[in-house]
Amino acid sequence: MKQADISQVSHYLQQLQDNICHGLETEDGLATFTEERWNHTGGGGGRTRFMAKGKVFEKGGVNFSHVRGDTLPKAATVTRPHLAGRKFQAMGVSLVMHPDNPYVPASHANVRLIIAEKPGSDPIWWFGGGYDLTPYYAFEEDCVHWHKTACQACLPFGENIYKNYKKWCDEYFYLKHRKETRGVGGLFFDDLNEWDFEKCFAFIRAVGESYLQAYLPIVQKRKHESFGEREKSFQCYRRGRYVEFNLLYDRGTIFGIQSGGRTESILMSLPPTVQWQYNWQPTEGTAEHRLTEKFLIPRDWV
Amino acid sequence: MKQADISQVSHYLQQLQDNICHGLETEDGLATFTEERWNHTGGGGGRTRFMAKGKVFEKGGVNFSHVRGDTLPKAATVTRPHLAGRKFQAMGVSLVMHPDNPYVPASHANVRLIIAEKPGSDPIWWFGGGYDLTPYYAFEEDCVHWHKTACQACLPFGENIYKNYKKWCDEYFYLKHRKETRGVGGLFFDDLNEWDFEKCFAFIRAVGESYLQAYLPIVQKRKHESFGEREKSFQCYRRGRYVEFNLLYDRGTIFGIQSGGRTESILMSLPPTVQWQYNWQPTEGTAEHRLTEKFLIPRDWV
Repeated sequence: MKQADISQVSHYLQQLQDNICHGLETEDGLATFTEERWNHTGGGGGRTRFMAKGKVFEKGGVNFSHVRGDTLPKAATVTRPHLAGRKFQAMGVSLVMHPDNPYVPASHANVRLIIAEKPGSDPIWWFGGGYDLTPYYAFEEDCVHWHKTACQACLPFGENIYKNYKKWCDEYFYLKHRKETRGVGGLFFDDLNEWDFEKCFAFIRAVGESYLQAYLPIVQKRKHESFGEREKSFQCYRRGRYVEFNLLYDRGTIFGIQSGGRTESILMSLPPTVQWQYNWQPTEGTAEHRLTEKFLIPRDWV
Repeated sequence: MKQADISQVSHYLQQLQDNICHGLETEDGLATFTEERWNHTGGGGGRTRFMAKGKVFEKGGVNFSHVRGDTLPKAATVTRPHLAGRKFQAMGVSLVMHPDNPYVPASHANVRLIIAEKPGSDPIWWFGGGYDLTPYYAFEEDCVHWHKTACQACLPFGENIYKNYKKWCDEYFYLKHRKETRGVGGLFFDDLNEWDFEKCFAFIRAVGESYLQAYLPIVQKRKHESFGEREKSFQCYRRGRYVEFNLLYDRGTIFGIQSGGRTESILMSLPPTVQWQYNWQPTEGTAEHRLTEKFLIPRDWV
């Protein structure tokens, strides 16, 4: 891996951030992203872009960051614990969109490159990322579209890529203490360097570029559904699960917090309004009950 | 430690739960606690008591549990990691009250006994607990009353007890990623077995019994303050910090989740309505700004 490779990825990620922001702003039609640039204490920095109170999106953020640090946090790699403590660079685009309308699912996407460095040794690098969908009122056809788009993006890279990364996503976005998945999944991968750098980078681009193709048609289809207090209240309740996952399990969040990242950028992923009600249970036969019974379990969607 | 000691503590804790629930119900004047009994998969169980939509308390829970498990989770003891994996018993009362009025602080209290057992060895036991106060609109005199009551409760047990456990509380209820304390502190202690069993148990009782003396006068003083959307919105925003602490740092929560505890009882501590706004900052000179500047730092209150 050369310095030119690193710069190339960093440059691409900023372009990706631009493109995704543009697509989401166009879809929203009212709110635009506000940018904040910041510097990391260890070196590097980021471009945080957030929006709030849009016509479609109640809250959302699309962040680019490229930071350096002196000691790679434990949360950065599960499969290579011996690298913890190395100098590192981490760069990525990470986004979460929380729509206002409970019929429009929340979505998350991330692509990242991590490089662990040691004087006198070759740097060790790996890519990671993926995207996943979190509906509150779920529709089978939306899940099929989301997963088919993910599958198409993976196909040029191998026959089992979608299958493996879809499975990894189901396993990763899982709330053990609730015995349910965070949403209906998508793709998740980490520690990717089994191909050469060029192919890995091409894969990251395929994932990054298919995100809007996967998400926007669902937003367009559902954003005009009418809803009332019942749906909004259920959305706020379910968003509690989103918070629980991000703070209890999410490696990206914990990596960010451990590595002294910028708190407001990391926790931008948290939903705008959230409710916790003690032991609330949906009534059987309702759409709210169907969500946990039929959707928040690993399923074959393609 | 004899079986009779264990039964005695378990019995006392249930009485404490009764007394605290009675005091809080009387203060609320409208809502009452609903009880749910549950069994733990590993043995034992608990009495969850919750209230919602009271006149004073928007949400609250006072839980008793006494559970057995086959392998002590790591989160149970920081100072004795070699005990992780032992059979154990854990019993305690844990409570969190979230008032509706933003001028009334939230409060948390906990007393617990943990026993790590090993065939052929004497059981190893230790107590833990404490209480802490989380104001959103803070008053110096309330903090002084809270801490003086805590100090009085500790005094018979030694001159430095309050000082040490107050310091431990400031250190424990600290959000590193925010560089602020969760609230204005109080008492926190863990791994307590430096005295004999009788004295430790007496200390736990002193802590348990002083909680209402510390909290109720503050509730009484502030519950009639008038408030509007601004105060409610700030309270919901600050409650986000409460969630961040409990899910990112709190050993009780993580112990509960790791040991396969009852999710709804453990996460009963989470506030009813919470908001996250990207990078919101209070205006200098306001009460909201004073909270972080003057109160959410370790201070000498007695």
